[in-house]
Amino acid sequence: MHLSYGDQLLPMEKVLRDPVHDYVYIQHKIILDLINTSEFQRLRRIKQLGTTSLTFHGAEHSRFGHCLGVYEITRRICDMFARNYPSKTPGDGGWDDHERLVALCAALLHDIGHGPYSHTFEHIFHTDHEALTVQILTSPDTEVNQVLRQVSPEFPSQVAAVIQKTYPNPQVVQMISSQIDADRMDYLLRDSYYTGTDYGNFDLTRILRVMKPYQGGITFAMEGMHAVEDYIVSRFQMYMQVYFHPVSRSMEVILDHLLERANELYQNHSINAEATPHMLLPFFNNDFTLHDYLRLDDGVLDTYFNHWRDSKDQILADLATRFLDRRPLKSARLTEQTQSLLPKLQQLIEQAGFDSHYYTATNDSYDLPYDAYDPKMKKPRTQIELMQEDGSLVELSTVSDLVRAITGKVSGDRRFFFPKEMLSDQIDLFNDVNQAFQAHIQNDRLIL
Amino acid sequence: MHLSYGDQLLPMEKVLRDPVHDYVYIQHKIILDLINTSEFQRLRRIKQLGTTSLTFHGAEHSRFGHCLGVYEITRRICDMFARNYPSKTPGDGGWDDHERLVALCAALLHDIGHGPYSHTFEHIFHTDHEALTVQILTSPDTEVNQVLRQVSPEFPSQVAAVIQKTYPNPQVVQMISSQIDADRMDYLLRDSYYTGTDYGNFDLTRILRVMKPYQGGITFAMEGMHAVEDYIVSRFQMYMQVYFHPVSRSMEVILDHLLERANELYQNHSINAEATPHMLLPFFNNDFTLHDYLRLDDGVLDTYFNHWRDSKDQILADLATRFLDRRPLKSARLTEQTQSLLPKLQQLIEQAGFDSHYYTATNDSYDLPYDAYDPKMKKPRTQIELMQEDGSLVELSTVSDLVRAITGKVSGDRRFFFPKEMLSDQIDLFNDVNQAFQAHIQNDRLIL
Amino acid sequence: MHLSYGDQLLPMEKVLRDPVHDYVYIQHKIILDLINTSEFQRLRRIKQLGTTSLTFHGAEHSRFGHCLGVYEITRRICDMFARNYPSKTPGDGGWDDHERLVALCAALLHDIGHGPYSHTFEHIFHTDHEALTVQILTSPDTEVNQVLRQVSPEFPSQVAAVIQKTYPNPQVVQMISSQIDADRMDYLLRDSYYTGTDYGNFDLTRILRVMKPYQGGITFAMEGMHAVEDYIVSRFQMYMQVYFHPVSRSMEVILDHLLERANELYQNHSINAEATPHMLLPFFNNDFTLHDYLRLDDGVLDTYFNHWRDSKDQILADLATRFLDRRPLKSARLTEQTQSLLPKLQQLIEQAGFDSHYYTATNDSYDLPYDAYDPKMKKPRTQIELMQEDGSLVELSTVSDLVRAITGKVSGDRRFFFPKEMLSDQIDLFNDVNQAFQAHIQNDRLIL
Amino acid sequence: MHLSYGDQLLPMEKVLRDPVHDYVYIQHKIILDLINTSEFQRLRRIKQLGTTSLTFHGAEHSRFGHCLGVYEITRRICDMFARNYPSKTPGDGGWDDHERLVALCAALLHDIGHGPYSHTFEHIFHTDHEALTVQILTSPDTEVNQVLRQVSPEFPSQVAAVIQKTYPNPQVVQMISSQIDADRMDYLLRDSYYTGTDYGNFDLTRILRVMKPYQGGITFAMEGMHAVEDYIVSRFQMYMQVYFHPVSRSMEVILDHLLERANELYQNHSINAEATPHMLLPFFNNDFTLHDYLRLDDGVLDTYFNHWRDSKDQILADLATRFLDRRPLKSARLTEQTQSLLPKLQQLIEQAGFDSHYYTATNDSYDLPYDAYDPKMKKPRTQIELMQEDGSLVELSTVSDLVRAITGKVSGDRRFFFPKEMLSDQIDLFNDVNQAFQAHIQNDRLIL
Repeated sequence: MHLSYGDQLLPMEKVLRDPVHDYVYIQHKIILDLINTSEFQRLRRIKQLGTTSLTFHGAEHSRFGHCLGVYEITRRICDMFARNYPSKTPGDGGWDDHERLVALCAALLHDIGHGPYSHTFEHIFHTDHEALTVQILTSPDTEVNQVLRQVSPEFPSQVAAVIQKTYPNPQVVQMISSQIDADRMDYLLRDSYYTGTDYGNFDLTRILRVMKPYQGGITFAMEGMHAVEDYIVSRFQMYMQVYFHPVSRSMEVILDHLLERANELYQNHSINAEATPHMLLPFFNNDFTLHDYLRLDDGVLDTYFNHWRDSKDQILADLATRFLDRRPLKSARLTEQTQSLLPKLQQLIEQAGFDSHYYTATNDSYDLPYDAYDPKMKKPRTQIELMQEDGSLVELSTVSDLVRAITGKVSGDRRFFFPKEMLSDQIDLFNDVNQAFQAHIQNDRLIL
Repeated sequence: MHLSYGDQLLPMEKVLRDPVHDYVYIQHKIILDLINTSEFQRLRRIKQLGTTSLTFHGAEHSRFGHCLGVYEITRRICDMFARNYPSKTPGDGGWDDHERLVALCAALLHDIGHGPYSHTFEHIFHTDHEALTVQILTSPDTEVNQVLRQVSPEFPSQVAAVIQKTYPNPQVVQMISSQIDADRMDYLLRDSYYTGTDYGNFDLTRILRVMKPYQGGITFAMEGMHAVEDYIVSRFQMYMQVYFHPVSRSMEVILDHLLERANELYQNHSINAEATPHMLLPFFNNDFTLHDYLRLDDGVLDTYFNHWRDSKDQILADLATRFLDRRPLKSARLTEQTQSLLPKLQQLIEQAGFDSHYYTATNDSYDLPYDAYDPKMKKPRTQIELMQEDGSLVELSTVSDLVRAITGKVSGDRRFFFPKEMLSDQIDLFNDVNQAFQAHIQNDRLIL
Repeated sequence: MHLSYGDQLLPMEKVLRDPVHDYVYIQHKIILDLINTSEFQRLRRIKQLGTTSLTFHGAEHSRFGHCLGVYEITRRICDMFARNYPSKTPGDGGWDDHERLVALCAALLHDIGHGPYSHTFEHIFHTDHEALTVQILTSPDTEVNQVLRQVSPEFPSQVAAVIQKTYPNPQVVQMISSQIDADRMDYLLRDSYYTGTDYGNFDLTRILRVMKPYQGGITFAMEGMHAVEDYIVSRFQMYMQVYFHPVSRSMEVILDHLLERANELYQNHSINAEATPHMLLPFFNNDFTLHDYLRLDDGVLDTYFNHWRDSKDQILADLATRFLDRRPLKSARLTEQTQSLLPKLQQLIEQAGFDSHYYTATNDSYDLPYDAYDPKMKKPRTQIELMQEDGSLVELSTVSDLVRAITGKVSGDRRFFFPKEMLSDQIDLFNDVNQAFQAHIQNDRLIL
Repeated sequence: MHLSYGDQLLPMEKVLRDPVHDYVYIQHKIILDLINTSEFQRLRRIKQLGTTSLTFHGAEHSRFGHCLGVYEITRRICDMFARNYPSKTPGDGGWDDHERLVALCAALLHDIGHGPYSHTFEHIFHTDHEALTVQILTSPDTEVNQVLRQVSPEFPSQVAAVIQKTYPNPQVVQMISSQIDADRMDYLLRDSYYTGTDYGNFDLTRILRVMKPYQGGITFAMEGMHAVEDYIVSRFQMYMQVYFHPVSRSMEVILDHLLERANELYQNHSINAEATPHMLLPFFNNDFTLHDYLRLDDGVLDTYFNHWRDSKDQILADLATRFLDRRPLKSARLTEQTQSLLPKLQQLIEQAGFDSHYYTATNDSYDLPYDAYDPKMKKPRTQIELMQEDGSLVELSTVSDLVRAITGKVSGDRRFFFPKEMLSDQIDLFNDVNQAFQAHIQNDRLIL
């Protein structure tokens, strides 16, 4: 197979200034061509963290920078592997630098299928960003596919295989997705930088230094144990402090209900002309093309919300306003014991004049910060292994007290969301209702 | 005058995590109420640097964070002035802390009138963001005005006066707008942070330490001369390296021509139904209300561009695509001598198949990095003065060689923009045309 | 009691530029006077981390900067307590700002009794830096005492009481020494900065924000749990990665043996004239005054080592050279099972020509990263408590999985140190000896 | 020439953690061997900035880290040159990677001849650190020479030639010493980091990117003009704000007078036995060997000062105390006009009881921040040149207003130093004398 196009280097290495990695270095013509496709440029218009920017106002960065960052980390890993661990004979566990191109392309494109407010959008419209990523790579209509095809007819599906974890070389797969991969490493650093919190920081240079390829994929030198431990702890803390922040989740609840309400009104033919969300109709009708999907971005959705705030439907108008003007719901922790309280609380909320379907929600945010390999799991994870001086491997949690503490433990919480108005002591009319409601909340928890 | 509402402090100081200032501290209820208005929240949907994010991909931050930052710097100045230089008798040149509230509100709201892609939008639709800021403060229909009015009936216009520089106390005015004010200090630091360039960094803590109020406004202790010098140099370098970047200006040229084309088509009734930009019509018709203006944001414009890329008008469709997919024009420096070349170059561009009105432009980017006071100027600037130990004042450029070097000197350049295709050597058809064109470009300059 | 001197503020707040805290702010005349004493200036000549700078070359900072940093953090805590939690009636758990002066002085002076290479020096000469600190504060001959006495005759012993933890107000004591105090917070940040490792970083601003005084001392708002957790984890990682580094411990072993050898030679009258360590003689003779102690610093010891490298005693000369030229011993982990190997290994080392008393050592480095209060312990620690919204307290490890993982667990290791020459495979003469030795070392551990 | 030893790479690249460059990468065995020499390790005991740490307390770093930093920057330049501009035929202006070894060794060792408090020491004892550097490289007795000789007999003098600027390849020479070289780049960044000031920061990554080898040495791509400009401005500001700080210069004055006084007493045989500075005697006698020189370090000098503070000679004792306890002289700016005042001021100082020879001084601190090549100068400097797209060169100050402003201009000041006691208003006895003195000082300047 002759990779002539894939091998083409730019006459002069190109750099993009990046606040996280200082510079992103582009050496292959194909990488520059991929960045210049319409599908990739569209990522500039989709926020990386969705509603999190409504809690951490600094975090307005898009998926565009993150994708460049994953590419850059992958490029650095390839450079280091090629310099220090080149494969000499096939199957010796070293790095075969012919894999560089497929790794770089997969890194750059791994999130290309994301749409606006992905999580919520998928929930309401049953789309799947991973399947869409594969479609964008392999559908002959996209600019991305046209670029990839120039390498070889099979190249688009090879890149897709890396993202789907079916690519034969586990080193390439684990570089892009494993419990310590270029994707996670970039987003922790990037989200830390933009939120202005320091929790996600870890020592990237050191992690890259102790990374080693071997037959089974990627391992880490034992001397780097504490650097890997620090990364796991950082990831845990970002989830606890940033990604699971109750205010962001509350804004996501509002967004979810807003789209649900619009869909309901559309199905009932009660959406008025000016506010018709033309670009969303294929999704309301559950019959959309890739082209329909690729027209969407955050601004398109926000524009419809902007129209809907003038809607005659009070719930639609109110939810759109709450979303655009950032009026979050309040929340409290919920446990199995206090679950039984919900009907009573929803009733009080109805009494206070709110539709409890659209104005309350329960939301789980749970994460498994790290897990050792467990064949009984539905999707067993690739565990992190450390290589000792004599070449033997040990699993991370067996040598790190900190990691063991959070291994296999689901972290996060389950919360009940409700209108802020329920906590007010000013509305005379509903004073009794509010007092009854507030009696069930203490120290950020529901109580019986 | 009883400022009861203005004096209300939050039961517990509230903080917003900010990547530039670490935290923004909110102590007054009114500040929190202003942040929660619809008009202020809208700033989240308007990028601070417009097309600059298409050159520096990290710089996707909105005007929302900048406004908070200007507020925070102003708050710190007030704190420091109140601690170190409280006024004892009226007119003694000290700081009267009753001015704090009007200063904080003006700082927070000084950019509230900005719309999407402000510079270009104003150029095409003849709007004026400063006049709109005053309108938002003083019009009884806005949420901002409703909050401000609770302090006193005159308060909205007092805040407006600070922004318009007609407020009687020059200390308050200079805090918000002068050659070294909270606005400039925040944007230099913030734009540096988000672009990932270091040029705009200067020592904010030290500048705040050497700032002093006096009868004539604000001065700086002589020992802080080099810190002030460093700030001026940083500002100069951000203009040269970031704000005047040719690629961003090229994208602004495309945006400008895109809106101009849409307007032309609308006036000729040739825009098709689906692509009708409902929210822009009041501006096309040159008859818009404040409400019309406040509905706009970057996403709304981008959504129309998204529609227009499917337009039957080739120029509209092509310009929209170039804008959304980031396909910048190329450019070269232009001087008075080479100005005469333009007709010839435009003719070659027409020969290559481009409408030279929509596909070329000249654009100036000039800035006066610093100027001493000059009564002959149309808008004389408040010069920066340093106070010596014995209380006498000296103007900055008389003691700093570096500042003197750029004082009163207009910096920047004038460029001619044209389609990238003119530089290609691949299109056989236009080979001669391209060669003739390229003969006039050398070392980033037009040559005769 | 009239604290006139203690209350004197400088006419203008003075600042010292500090790389960790940006600026250290000095407001009281007494603080400036204390910094200017001979005893305090001497701290500039004593490295904060001793032999650690031989592993992390950037970490050459002295105890001087650390003491200023502890002062500065304490000052910020006092400011925040005075602003947000002022005591209104005695015993209400609020902060009484009359305690500020004693807190600031104790913070500044808490390490004033440290000498050169403290840990090793104390081991060899049986000095005690805490007792010496108290002596420096209370002995009428020191400049420090002369400054403190100007406040009141009792003030020196009040400051000493804070450091000895016998001061009646637990808030003041815990500010300076507890499991999360100004001392630890400064050294983690400072040692991170100077080593260039990031492990010791935590969010100081946020920790200071969530700190609260109460009757029992100092607590933290529940919302700050993760920030406190992050601090504990950072501390754990600094111990594991920096403070317990085997190379630094190895250099400490050499230093210890070097001083021991000199002492032995002195007691045997075999030290020659030129190399007589005049300033150390009082310590060799176990009869020293405070004045003798205060003359010592790192440079004095190094100067003697410099002389000793020319000694006729081969062991003294060799150890001095190894120390000054940084020639560390090697080491391997030791367990209870492998303890029995030591005699055999020492014998092999003797066979290779080394005095096993001076060229081997075992060294423990253990730390208790955090502990909840346990009355059965010899020195029960003040546990970290979090305050919930309703005022109730919970102990940190009951709410943090990460902290619980390392609570009450001793971390660190025990190592056996030996000459690097034992690992060589080049010395033909001792080839068999070396091979026999090396057979007992694998993966950084002794094996049977 | 067979460079077998020089070509030996370590089995695994070694890294040293560095706070400025993150890591220093060591690949050649010879570099590790050089670092491990006695002469190089001695640099750990010599402060990089001498008395500056008495003004900026954070700046206690030694010459050791700086030398590693210069090595690391040089290594990165070599890597980049080898990747992007390899020489294909001799004399084509490309980089010949056979020069790497001599460049790296020269970078590492360029400061090896520095002694304690170099500037002052050279002034009093007429030593010359550059000549000593050459001696250390070429004298067969040093460990450094023994390592270098293993490459080839000529190698030590080749390395010396680079440092003396007589090496034939100007690219290698300019890498190590020119107006923008690895030495200056490291010390600006490092001194900024340790002082905690930001003035010395510039964009190292970008400067390295735009550097290019050519026949005449090293040039910079035109697109990097502002990065180079920023470096020149940073350098200027570090001189103005840090290196020329009056307090550090005042401490240097004291140090200078202290050594002068000791020398005078020694020549008069009036130094007492215990205080005899054995290691300094060869210098007092003006007859020292390289071995004598290499025994000295900051600690040795400080130890003598420590002894001298108990001297019977009051001036020696007082100056030693002022130095160790940091009691700086005060100072004021001096001009040609006010020069005539000095005799009168010195007389007043004598009247106040001070020996005016030992207690006053005038001191110049001037620097030429940048200069274009001027053949008329005694030591014409290599000017900084920028390469345009078409390969033509332009000199920096012709395209940068900021650089032009400081080109060829000597910056700094001349100050008169005197005892702080002259500014006191508390000593009744000398009240008239002090008032007469103070009448000549205003706004930090002498006045007639």
